[in-house]
Amino acid sequence: MDFEIKYKDAMARVGKFETPHGTVTTPALMPVVHPGKQTLDVKKLGAEIVITNSYIIYKNEKLKKKALEEGVHSLIDFPGTIETDSGSFQLSVYGDIDITNEEVIKFQEAIGTDIGTSLDIPTAPYVKREEAESDLEVTIERAEEASKVRTDLLLNSVVQGSTFPDLREQCAKEIAKFDADIYPIGAVVPLMEMYRYADLVDAVIYSMRGLPENKPRHLMGAGHPMLFALATAMGCDLFDSAAYILYANKGRFMMPDGTLRLDDLVEMPCSCRVCTEHTVDELKQMEPEKRAKLIAEHNLHISFAEIRRIRQAIVDGELMKLVELRCRAHPFLLDGLRRLQEYQEDMEKLNPSSKKTAFFYTGYESLSRSEVSRHIKHLENLKPKNKNLVILPHTRKPYTKYVNREYIKKYTSKIPTYYSNNDMNTNYADSDVVVADVPFGIIPLGLDEFYPLAQNESPAIHDENSKKFLRELITKYADKYENVLIHRKVIDKFDLTGYALIENELELPEAKIDDFNRLKDIADYQFGTGAGNALFGDDPEKITIEKSKKTKKIRHVFEGDENIVNMRANDGFLILSDLGAVRLHEFLDAPTMRVVVSEDSEPFARKGKSVFNKFVLDCDENIRRNDEVLIVNKEDELLACGKSLLSSYEINDFMTGQAIKTRKIKKIDE
Amino acid sequence: MDFEIKYKDAMARVGKFETPHGTVTTPALMPVVHPGKQTLDVKKLGAEIVITNSYIIYKNEKLKKKALEEGVHSLIDFPGTIETDSGSFQLSVYGDIDITNEEVIKFQEAIGTDIGTSLDIPTAPYVKREEAESDLEVTIERAEEASKVRTDLLLNSVVQGSTFPDLREQCAKEIAKFDADIYPIGAVVPLMEMYRYADLVDAVIYSMRGLPENKPRHLMGAGHPMLFALATAMGCDLFDSAAYILYANKGRFMMPDGTLRLDDLVEMPCSCRVCTEHTVDELKQMEPEKRAKLIAEHNLHISFAEIRRIRQAIVDGELMKLVELRCRAHPFLLDGLRRLQEYQEDMEKLNPSSKKTAFFYTGYESLSRSEVSRHIKHLENLKPKNKNLVILPHTRKPYTKYVNREYIKKYTSKIPTYYSNNDMNTNYADSDVVVADVPFGIIPLGLDEFYPLAQNESPAIHDENSKKFLRELITKYADKYENVLIHRKVIDKFDLTGYALIENELELPEAKIDDFNRLKDIADYQFGTGAGNALFGDDPEKITIEKSKKTKKIRHVFEGDENIVNMRANDGFLILSDLGAVRLHEFLDAPTMRVVVSEDSEPFARKGKSVFNKFVLDCDENIRRNDEVLIVNKEDELLACGKSLLSSYEINDFMTGQAIKTRKIKKIDE
Repeated sequence: MDFEIKYKDAMARVGKFETPHGTVTTPALMPVVHPGKQTLDVKKLGAEIVITNSYIIYKNEKLKKKALEEGVHSLIDFPGTIETDSGSFQLSVYGDIDITNEEVIKFQEAIGTDIGTSLDIPTAPYVKREEAESDLEVTIERAEEASKVRTDLLLNSVVQGSTFPDLREQCAKEIAKFDADIYPIGAVVPLMEMYRYADLVDAVIYSMRGLPENKPRHLMGAGHPMLFALATAMGCDLFDSAAYILYANKGRFMMPDGTLRLDDLVEMPCSCRVCTEHTVDELKQMEPEKRAKLIAEHNLHISFAEIRRIRQAIVDGELMKLVELRCRAHPFLLDGLRRLQEYQEDMEKLNPSSKKTAFFYTGYESLSRSEVSRHIKHLENLKPKNKNLVILPHTRKPYTKYVNREYIKKYTSKIPTYYSNNDMNTNYADSDVVVADVPFGIIPLGLDEFYPLAQNESPAIHDENSKKFLRELITKYADKYENVLIHRKVIDKFDLTGYALIENELELPEAKIDDFNRLKDIADYQFGTGAGNALFGDDPEKITIEKSKKTKKIRHVFEGDENIVNMRANDGFLILSDLGAVRLHEFLDAPTMRVVVSEDSEPFARKGKSVFNKFVLDCDENIRRNDEVLIVNKEDELLACGKSLLSSYEINDFMTGQAIKTRKIKKIDE
Repeated sequence: MDFEIKYKDAMARVGKFETPHGTVTTPALMPVVHPGKQTLDVKKLGAEIVITNSYIIYKNEKLKKKALEEGVHSLIDFPGTIETDSGSFQLSVYGDIDITNEEVIKFQEAIGTDIGTSLDIPTAPYVKREEAESDLEVTIERAEEASKVRTDLLLNSVVQGSTFPDLREQCAKEIAKFDADIYPIGAVVPLMEMYRYADLVDAVIYSMRGLPENKPRHLMGAGHPMLFALATAMGCDLFDSAAYILYANKGRFMMPDGTLRLDDLVEMPCSCRVCTEHTVDELKQMEPEKRAKLIAEHNLHISFAEIRRIRQAIVDGELMKLVELRCRAHPFLLDGLRRLQEYQEDMEKLNPSSKKTAFFYTGYESLSRSEVSRHIKHLENLKPKNKNLVILPHTRKPYTKYVNREYIKKYTSKIPTYYSNNDMNTNYADSDVVVADVPFGIIPLGLDEFYPLAQNESPAIHDENSKKFLRELITKYADKYENVLIHRKVIDKFDLTGYALIENELELPEAKIDDFNRLKDIADYQFGTGAGNALFGDDPEKITIEKSKKTKKIRHVFEGDENIVNMRANDGFLILSDLGAVRLHEFLDAPTMRVVVSEDSEPFARKGKSVFNKFVLDCDENIRRNDEVLIVNKEDELLACGKSLLSSYEINDFMTGQAIKTRKIKKIDE
């Protein structure tokens, strides 16, 4: 089964896959449909895919007969994609069931299930390690057996391993060898029931480390909309919900920020048809079965709406904002989010380098987003150009427009006061100038229009974590310099210590940067130190810069009549043109920025045709979605350049779909 | 017009008021209805009250004629309550209008408006002080004139004062003298348009300081659901929305966490009829007018749902949680929330002392809720009973059940390690024992079942603000003691310094508390230091404690056969019985806990009949909703006891409705 990623954000994907009964868009919610007693039309409420239990069908003669004769789609009256579970749940509850792994695979195939499941062993959380290990062996054996037994059936292969993160990862790696179609993460329901969301985060992330990027993952038993955003951000694509009806039977309304009980309600809680057409009193007085059906409808409405909201957030590149909002529904969910902060590297590997929307700070947890950790890494690699550093307070953006002497005088203090690491009479006229701000800490002036350093907002009132973060970052960055001058407002805002007040008037540098140096700063930041020099040389006279008449921003950069780079308006990224690609290819050693394509596809790449995943032999692991890349052959001969549509980790795992949107280089022969 | 408060949370109220055209439940959203071109049936979508513009009607001959002949209800085809604006908005836009204050009041009365508005001067934010002051004079004059001109018309009187908080307060106090029915807070739209939410919080809170509690307040021009929760928490009861249609005309979908543009949408964002019955593509291809109408319908659905959600949160006592969630929609709204932290005293004055639901920590902003600041005040008043203090780490709740030697050994460390302020060989067997935990800092063991010290949850991973908060609180509390012993886990979790590791084994106190001392601790905490002794004396032998068989919690406390107090199961509050009331009345000097009633109502109070606001002459300003009170006459003779249904500030302002749910004291003559 092919899975196609359409949009990415954090580890989340909006994707599509095909089954014999239609297309499924992910993230998707699969309502659990009871094969014998379903009353709600889940298709009408938005379900493209449902899940039902093959073991229940198998055990009931009447259902079994009908399923074998007419197929499971007719049995449960659902024309779309059907996934079936294998009886593992019954196994975990009753300890034993009377069907073998092989039988259950064959039975699922016989009743025409689209996606079947092998009989894995759901190991509970917090068991002894030996138990988890021995269960795991069986799960892996059965996954292998299932892959051999099935013919056309699409196959689930479940990741187990209890609460031992390394076992989760090991299991994922093992079962991934048998080439299943979907990877559920199993036996996490007890963790969710106990509100152990931090442990859930561990289990999911370690599973992800072992799973390929080119298959959907299903967080088994996750049916509460409160959890969808967080799970999606960790790379989960599918959810199943029996909860919608189980909660409804107990008079419970699911909401993205928790659960409400009918008994406690004075007002209907949402905007759905059920909540706008009925009153609380009506529902309370209603016959229980009818009431449960209406509440179940609300639960599905709100769950599907949350799934749509999450897809939209992924497309907009603001999923983490939504996650940070949703995780405040319960303190233990917030613990899950805070645990996720430990997995910044996992998140960063799959996070696009540029997004459509601005970075909105929602709390200190935002400081752990990939955008911030990536910037810090970039900062560590930047080399000082002067021995003096001046740190100015943030103003309006872009900083170069507002961070000037007049503005600083006017808005930060009538008499500007500075602090220094050094009481000598230093002349700061020649200095590297940076702005200190939340959430990106240190912003060198030349980068003030580069994504996301320009495209972000944070509150003016700082929390202690932000202050600490800024202090540590400033201290580290200042260490690269001999003399450091810091504006009073920066000292005050972030409680910086160790700097002494300067009494005398200072000759400050104009906080301006010329276009030539701005270009070089951006190139060094985007492609690595030295790239600016490699692309634009030392002599500003040789370089022609064309600017937008409207925005006054740099658009095109030439040397003579040869185009070196262009600047993308929305994120300030440098886009390689012919000369730029050739020069960077010369300057940067392989494998940096390289996507190595097979011989077959060389002619297509030279013509500027898109590079498909299956033709990529290798690529720089630092490549992220929306990054500029150099397309080369095995001999590292430059064929073309382009923009990556995926992260290197996805390019490596995917055998279908586009990897690179290619740009032809004119001077390269087709 | 009578306004009745049904439920309270923070400064927010769920209330009701009556107009000639029906009952309005607050918080309420008043859709703005254009008198000439309304197409949406807002009544059907949930509106009990709408707002329309009397000046537009006045200026249009056709509308004017119809309104005067048939009334405004017929003109705009809305049978419920109608509020009309006066033309102030037109005045603020065009600088001049051709109607006087007196004329517009008379006109509104003539067309049968339920609630009319005087012609106030909307002063823009950030103007010069002189301008704000001179505008204010006119506004106040016209408010007075309007109150004289109107006969039956219910009257709005608008608070102005630009962004000068003291002028807002002054204006509110002045206009409150003329006894209007509703108090709008005006000219805040520019603040909202500029996302200056911190300044908006200042303007609103200062206005509230001048306004009476017994009238609804309307935040004029606030139509975005993102803002409703915060505004409600500050005491706003009414919102108006022209935004639902203005946004719709531009293809904008309102959501409680921001705005989405149709152009950017790939999925319909909510669970409403419009979002579930239409696709994005359908809407994009639709004829603009039809599309706008559908998006307007979505905007109203989502706005009314948010209003209902807020009412529910007030009833449940978890509005601040909702506010803290919603304010993360935009960093500048978060700034508003963080500004609100400065107004903890204003919030505390109106916040109930006990609530139905647990305190859920959503971020460090939760540390500024009234529950926390109130606890800190209580802590400051508690007197040490020993010279030694032992601080233990939090465990599961209730702490007395879990904070024992075995549990601490098992869950916090194999070998417990302690730190001390003091390297002497102190014997800690006689110590005051407290638990250190977020968000309440220090919890003396005896209070571990008292609301909200038992009814709260916070994440296990702490932010820096929480750590700092705990450090400061522990340091301050420890100052009361000679010897302080702190468990290693507390030191580690909150980065405490200044305590030295103790090497030798320690004789620790069993972290238990007997029922008699628990009762006394609770009484001291709830009613003030010494109350425990006053109520229960020194001799445990004299006191009989009855416990619940099921929960093992204290239920009834007697001396001989006389009931002193009972303990409320849900919040652990002591409820005064005959003997308790008499003893507290004797122990506590007036005005503490007193509600002084008029002579007329004395016989009713003695009989145990509810005390109505109009009969209250005076009351202790520290009384909060759900607090125990002593009902006395002017001579401070005890008449009865009871539970306050309002805060002292509300009791003082209200002339209708119940103030106290009274309990008769048997030994007091009727």
